[in-house]
Formats: sequence, structure tokens, C-alpha cells
Amino acid sequence: MTIRVTVWGENRHEQLEPEVAKRYPNGMHGAVAEGIEANLGEGVTVRTATLDDPEHGLTEEVLQNTDVLTWWGHAAHAEVSDEVVDRVQRHVLAGMGLVVLHSGHWSKIFQRLMGTSCTLRWRSEHDRELLWTVDPTHPIAQGVPHPLIIEEDEMYGEFFDIPAPDEIVFISSFTGGEVFRSGITFKRGFGKIFYFRPGDQDFPTYFHEGVRKVISNAVEWAVTVRPERTDPVLLRYDTEDFYNGQGYQGALDPEKQK
Amino acid sequence: MTIRVTVWGENRHEQLEPEVAKRYPNGMHGAVAEGIEANLGEGVTVRTATLDDPEHGLTEEVLQNTDVLTWWGHAAHAEVSDEVVDRVQRHVLAGMGLVVLHSGHWSKIFQRLMGTSCTLRWRSEHDRELLWTVDPTHPIAQGVPHPLIIEEDEMYGEFFDIPAPDEIVFISSFTGGEVFRSGITFKRGFGKIFYFRPGDQDFPTYFHEGVRKVISNAVEWAVTVRPERTDPVLLRYDTEDFYNGQGYQGALDPEKQK
Amino acid sequence: MTIRVTVWGENRHEQLEPEVAKRYPNGMHGAVAEGIEANLGEGVTVRTATLDDPEHGLTEEVLQNTDVLTWWGHAAHAEVSDEVVDRVQRHVLAGMGLVVLHSGHWSKIFQRLMGTSCTLRWRSEHDRELLWTVDPTHPIAQGVPHPLIIEEDEMYGEFFDIPAPDEIVFISSFTGGEVFRSGITFKRGFGKIFYFRPGDQDFPTYFHEGVRKVISNAVEWAVTVRPERTDPVLLRYDTEDFYNGQGYQGALDPEKQK
Amino acid sequence: MTIRVTVWGENRHEQLEPEVAKRYPNGMHGAVAEGIEANLGEGVTVRTATLDDPEHGLTEEVLQNTDVLTWWGHAAHAEVSDEVVDRVQRHVLAGMGLVVLHSGHWSKIFQRLMGTSCTLRWRSEHDRELLWTVDPTHPIAQGVPHPLIIEEDEMYGEFFDIPAPDEIVFISSFTGGEVFRSGITFKRGFGKIFYFRPGDQDFPTYFHEGVRKVISNAVEWAVTVRPERTDPVLLRYDTEDFYNGQGYQGALDPEKQK
Repeated sequence: MTIRVTVWGENRHEQLEPEVAKRYPNGMHGAVAEGIEANLGEGVTVRTATLDDPEHGLTEEVLQNTDVLTWWGHAAHAEVSDEVVDRVQRHVLAGMGLVVLHSGHWSKIFQRLMGTSCTLRWRSEHDRELLWTVDPTHPIAQGVPHPLIIEEDEMYGEFFDIPAPDEIVFISSFTGGEVFRSGITFKRGFGKIFYFRPGDQDFPTYFHEGVRKVISNAVEWAVTVRPERTDPVLLRYDTEDFYNGQGYQGALDPEKQK
Repeated sequence: MTIRVTVWGENRHEQLEPEVAKRYPNGMHGAVAEGIEANLGEGVTVRTATLDDPEHGLTEEVLQNTDVLTWWGHAAHAEVSDEVVDRVQRHVLAGMGLVVLHSGHWSKIFQRLMGTSCTLRWRSEHDRELLWTVDPTHPIAQGVPHPLIIEEDEMYGEFFDIPAPDEIVFISSFTGGEVFRSGITFKRGFGKIFYFRPGDQDFPTYFHEGVRKVISNAVEWAVTVRPERTDPVLLRYDTEDFYNGQGYQGALDPEKQK
Repeated sequence: MTIRVTVWGENRHEQLEPEVAKRYPNGMHGAVAEGIEANLGEGVTVRTATLDDPEHGLTEEVLQNTDVLTWWGHAAHAEVSDEVVDRVQRHVLAGMGLVVLHSGHWSKIFQRLMGTSCTLRWRSEHDRELLWTVDPTHPIAQGVPHPLIIEEDEMYGEFFDIPAPDEIVFISSFTGGEVFRSGITFKRGFGKIFYFRPGDQDFPTYFHEGVRKVISNAVEWAVTVRPERTDPVLLRYDTEDFYNGQGYQGALDPEKQK
Repeated sequence: MTIRVTVWGENRHEQLEPEVAKRYPNGMHGAVAEGIEANLGEGVTVRTATLDDPEHGLTEEVLQNTDVLTWWGHAAHAEVSDEVVDRVQRHVLAGMGLVVLHSGHWSKIFQRLMGTSCTLRWRSEHDRELLWTVDPTHPIAQGVPHPLIIEEDEMYGEFFDIPAPDEIVFISSFTGGEVFRSGITFKRGFGKIFYFRPGDQDFPTYFHEGVRKVISNAVEWAVTVRPERTDPVLLRYDTEDFYNGQGYQGALDPEKQK
């Protein structure tokens, strides 16, 4: 089965900063999309969507036809509409996969799904990053060097304010000595989430073969194995009737209010 | 040191349903508060706050002087103002303990901190509940019978749509055969959260000695061991300057936009 | 690729107790093997091995050609040779999958891999068991009713003395009200382990379609995704030589002992 | 209540290598003991025991009177008797705390409790180690600088072959860029275990104030909150008789063998 991927990019640095536009001539979202296609080939169909598209390119129809959404944002997190964030959250809880990249840690959608501030320490000074695999049997780690070496990238360091991840796949160190939980998984509702640290606008990280391999592995991993997308629901079940739930009628029983 | 507890109660069933008012003459919040005082005595000062108080009784000043907040709501989750939910979340992330009770699973604040729908299956039919300890070395399980027997209470069953808890302390079964992760812990930011299932308005659960013991243990457990409450922050650190972070200056560098 | 499964059975009850022999005419291992074949068909080749085979049927060659080993034992745990237990543990740590069934909780190999006593509470009195899925996106839960109903089986209850599982897939309740973490996963070394509770010699549990589905799902899940089986090793690495480890030369440096 | 601590040291490097004897004139165990006393003062009574003591100084009586055992070994893991390892494991499962230090990762007792090979990568080349707190609300992290800086120590790097820890408190990086899960907790049976990485015989690590603070915090944390030490047991429970288990009578029913 073909995985339908939507690569979302904020696409602002590319418009405002000539250096970034030069580094990423097809946009950062373009580079991410190309990396996924290069690795997964016929197994995937990739579209891109950006902040300035109507509804940020994430209409109900687009999301219904998306198995895995990847998310990169940075300068304009606040401009993402709450309505779209609600919609993306609903689809994740119903089973859509989500791969959050780098500065997406501070996006509304990641904060919404984590419940925490998602703050961290950082520095943009050409640190070398080494990503070490601490879960070598994880699908996302397959075919990835140990360590994965990124010659230069922005530094993110702990404390990273997130819930304890379900799984830690990669831990990074940087030239300056900081460490970071760089590849981490979470299940929320019926959806699977992978956060992956590398990928700043000021470095050509999304052309790195190893980074592209990890993102592609994550896309494959994040596809739900459930047969269809359904919302988690609250239902009442009669005794011994285990399979037929009944819809919620409200919290207050009119009969009792006398 | 004295633990400063604020017991929050929605206090609507008690006003609208004579049976509930009779069952809980001091309100459900009153019964919860009494149970904590009975167990922790001089070690605790307890105040109560309810939905109809100004700002729901949860002003900035009250929260700053609260070590642990307990939360019971049911019929009026939607009436809790988003501003107060923001405030409570901020205090939890900064280190305030939170004990969420029973139907509080569907409160705005619990959904906010979990990132999921917090839905489940349920039935109000006088099921007996048995709570089994699956983490016998946990502080919250000390002095609690194994199993803890509640003669009748509402049933909550799986699937409970929550993130995988950091720790599962209790698992319940019910007369009808359903099971539920009934006593579970989460860390979010610098705060500790305990969710505890028992306690419906239609049953005298909050007078049960074992239930009161668990809630009191949870209050003691949820107090942070950090010396003061601070917000998680995003800071920039220069190389080799590990201890002096600098505030965020924005995502776009004016120098680069040419 | 075909999954090579070895179904290990103690095969003692079948020889000593006529009722069990009648219930399981091909042995319990035979019933487990048939269930896996019925579900996975061409995707699997299944052999069986029993306690009374030379080396319990688990020679080095057999294990090298086993992707997933299933284990059922009960009356004769002590008769399993430590040498075979060492061998199985080594293969699990190198990447062989292991599915431990029911009373296998008290086997030497499970205790060895857990590090705990693996004790529990139990009763053999025809309790009905309901298995509830608490991780609905897990591959092992796919195609399994929620709940899975087993009309009668032995009861196992908490406290089950095991390490906190990596994942809890199923939680059971029993007629008597006990609960149990019934379907749980662990990674050890490069190997994946699933423990599954149902399956007593006194009940026809291994003919149950749902039980067979779970075991078959577990077999598929337990196959490592790593390309080959390798032992975890301790190696010395020179600075900046990240990929070429050197063998251990011993703890004491003769040069320093003067 | 006073915490009774037994500090176990292999005490071989100190006898065989003059440099180590000079660095640690009271033995490494002596330095560890002094650090605990310096931090916990009247709250603790500390004794030491070494490999060459009868029964390695870990008789049944000593262990019964030990709340927390710390363990450092390296050159002579193989000389530790299996009988003593059995005894220590039994006491841990019954509730004794265990703090495993540095090269104790490869001790029989740690391997026994983990079930894995406990292998890793290493280098002894004066790397600087930075320990970063990733669980800032954990008791073991209180009063510890973030990061904790150790000017030079042996390097340990991932992959560290251990079960996924219950909690990760510290992650280290080294000058060479390696990372390591350096402060990690596990519950086994009724006992609490903390593994802490720093502390090689070739460096004065156990005189470092921050290292001593962490070990002292770990000692306090590892004391069980259960009122007494009891072995996990397997017991049969009749229906509705939840509190009176009955001893195991064997796996085979003589009545059924006809």
C-alpha cells in the first residue's frame, strides 16, 4: 500500500532570508519531500503544504487523505490558526501519523499534543552533532549509522520539557557538550508521533543522507496499523453487553433533579 | 513543612440534585477536604474552591499559595474558563502538584495536560470495584489494602485514551468484568500529576477510608521536591557557558533579511 | 520472508495426566503450532521441540535457525538444564524473538531475562477471563476483539513480580475480580519478548481463535528488524574513531602494577 | 530513622596498583563511604565490606541489617560467589535498595537483575564528562548542578545493553562526543535500584562533591517505603478470599494422574 505523506513547511525563512532561499531552493519542505521520495520511492506519494496556503494547506479533505504528516515551523508558530491545530490534533488522535521536525518542538500542535511547554536550551554556532542509537531494535534506527554524524547544525540541549517519551531512539551530543533526546516516540489517541531534532534553516541538514533516512523510516513507522481512522469516544456499556456502546446523554439526569 | 492543599469542586450536582446534596452535605469538595485533613492532620492546610467562586476560586494568588490542587468536575466542564485553565496549567508546569479525581478525566485541565481525548467506557449500575496494586513500592500504595474494595461505584473501563502513564499504581476491575488503569502518575514540566478513578456523585465514595488514604498519599507524593516554583524556559547558552542562559530574541535575524 | 518458529512445550502433563492428553491429543505444543500455522500460513514454518528431546530440542543449530521461540512449561521448570537456558538467553539478546506463554512465567528463561521472581496469585476454578486492549495501535492487538473473552481458564492475579513492561497491550479481569497484566512486551539486548497469560493445561485455551490470533500476531511482532543476529559486546573506541571498536584486554594493566 | 548503608568495594586495584592505592588511601569503598557520611551525617550509619572478607562481607545477617547496598567492582567480577549473588538478589527483591556504581555495570548482581549483557563502549583517556539532568523533579537530581561537570573520567558510551530504565535522571556526554544514560532507576521485586556511571579507579571521581551528592541522594531514594522486607511469593487465593493466600502444593495433581 502506498503511504500518503503531507510535508508541511512554514516557508517563511525561505521568503525572507536570501541565504535560506539559496540553501533550500525548493524550500525546506521541498528538501524534506525529496528525501522521503528518494528513500521510499514507489511506496509513497508526497505532497507539500505551507502556511500561506488557504487553511495552511491542511483542509479536512487533505488530512483525511494523509497517512503521515510531517511538520516544520519556526518563525511563525503564532500564525497557525487554532482551527487548523484543532483539526490536526483530531486527526492524530484518530490515527494519522505525525513527524515533528526540529523547531517544530515549539509549534502549537506539538505543545497541544504534549501538554507541556516544550522549551529547551539552544545555540546556533556550527556545533557538530552526533546522534547515538539507544534502541537498536527500533524500526526507525535501521540503516542509520551509529553514530549518525551531522557536521554542523544548531544545538538543542536539555532540559527539554516534554512528557517522558514512550521510546527514546536517539540521543545527541554536540561539540559544546550538550545532550538532547533527539529521536523520540509518543502514542496519543490512535496516532503515532515521532519527534526528530536535526534540521535548522541555517544549515543544509535536510540534504544529509542519514537525516533523510531517519525521516523516511519515521514516515513508515508512523503509519497506523489500524484498519481505519476513528475518533476515540466516550460510550456507555450495559453489563455483559461488551461490544455495543451507547452515546453520551449528558451529565445530569433530569429525573434526579427534584 | 505544611502542605498547602486546595480542593477544587464543581459543586453543581450538590445544588441541582437533592440526593447528592444529602449524600454530601458539605459538598463533594467538603468530603474530599475532610478526608485529607483526617489523614494528614497537622501536616496540611486545606482550603476549598468551587466553580461559582470568582475566577472559580483559583486566582493567581491562590495558586501561588497552593502546593497541591485536587480537581473534581463533571457536569460543567465547559463552564471552566480557558483563562483559569491556562493559569492552572502554567502552575503545574512550574511545579504545583495536581490530583485529578474521577470524572475530572474529562476536564479541560486534564485534557490540556494529556493532549488526548481522555475518553473511556462507563456505566453507573452499582458495580463493585476492586483496586489492585501493581506497584507495591510506590508511596501512594502504602497503607492501602490489596485489593482496595469499594462496594459500589460507577464503572469506568478501557480503552482510556491517555498517554502511557509514567507509573501505573492501581488497576481496577468491576463486577461486570471491565478493567481500568485507576491510579496513574504523570510528570509534566516540573509538576507531578496523579489521576485517581473512584468517586462518583451518586455514591458515597469520598467517605471510604481507603479512598481517603489514597488521596492523602497522593497529596503528599505530588508536592514537588524542588526548592521553588519556576517556569520551564527556552534560553540560549554560549559555548562553555553552561549556567547563564540568555532570553529569546525572536526567530528572525534582521541582519540576515537582505 | 518466511518466519521460522520453534514452539517449545514441556510435554509432561500430556504424558502424566490422561485428561490433558485427551484435551490436547497433539500436545499443547501441537495446538500452539497449529494455531500459528492456521493464522500465518505460508508466512511461517513451524517446528516443535520438547523437554525430553536431546538438549530439550534446543541445540545451537536449532536456535540459529529460529526467528521466534515460543515457550510453555509448568511442572518441570527445574528440569530445564542451565546450559540450555544460557543458550536461549544468548540468542534472545542477539535478536531471537521469544513468546512466553502462561505458566512459562515461572520458567528459568523468563526469570533469567526479567531478573525478578515472576511470582503472582492464582486459582484454577473455571473463571471467565476478559482481556482488554489498552494499547489499540499495537500490532499484537490487531484483529483481536475488545474484549477478548475466554469462557474459562485458570486465574492469574496481581501483584505479578516483573519489571515495568515496555508496553502493556492487554489487561485481564477474571470472574472473581482479579486483574492481570496479560499481554506485555519487553526488549532485552537485541531481542523482543512478549508474555501472554492465557493457556492452562486444564482448559482448551490453545484452540480458542482469539488466543491463536494473539499468539500469531506476537510471532510476527517478535521477529527482529535487524538484518542479522549479533551479540551485544563491550568494545573500546579511540577518540574520533566511532566505528571501529577493539576487544577487551582485561581489567588490570600490567604496566600499572608495580 | 537512620539509614543503614553497606558500601561494597572489590578492593583489588587498591592492592595491586600503587597509583590507585595512593589516589584512594582508604580504598575506593572508603571514599564512597566518606562521601555518604559527609552528606547524610546523622541520618545514616555506613559500614564497608570487600571481596576478600569472608562471604565477601555480605552475610545474611549483614544484608538483613542493610537498607541500601552500594556496589563497586571491576577486575574481579568473576570471583564473586554465586551464592552471595543469589543472596543479594533475594534481598533486593524483598526490598533492599541497591546503588550500582560505574564498572559495577558488568557485575554478576547487576547482570542478574537486568537480564541483559550490560555491555557498552568505553575509553580511558581523560575525557571531560558532563551529566545533564533530564528529570528535574526527581529526588536524586536535587542540589546537583545542571550540568554536573567532572573534569576527567573514563568514558562510557551507548549502546548500553540494559532494559529500558523506569526513569532516566541523568544523561552524560564526553569530550569525544559519546553519550550515556548515566543515572537510571529500576524497580525489581520490592527493591529500588539506581545505576550511576561516574567513578573509575584511575580518577579521583569519588572525592568530587557533585558525585558524592548524587550517591547520597540515591541512598536516600533507594530506601524502601514499605514497612518491612518480605519476599515476593506465589500463592493461591480462593474466590472472594482476597487476603489469605495459600502456599504452593506443586504443579501436578496426584488425583488427576490415572
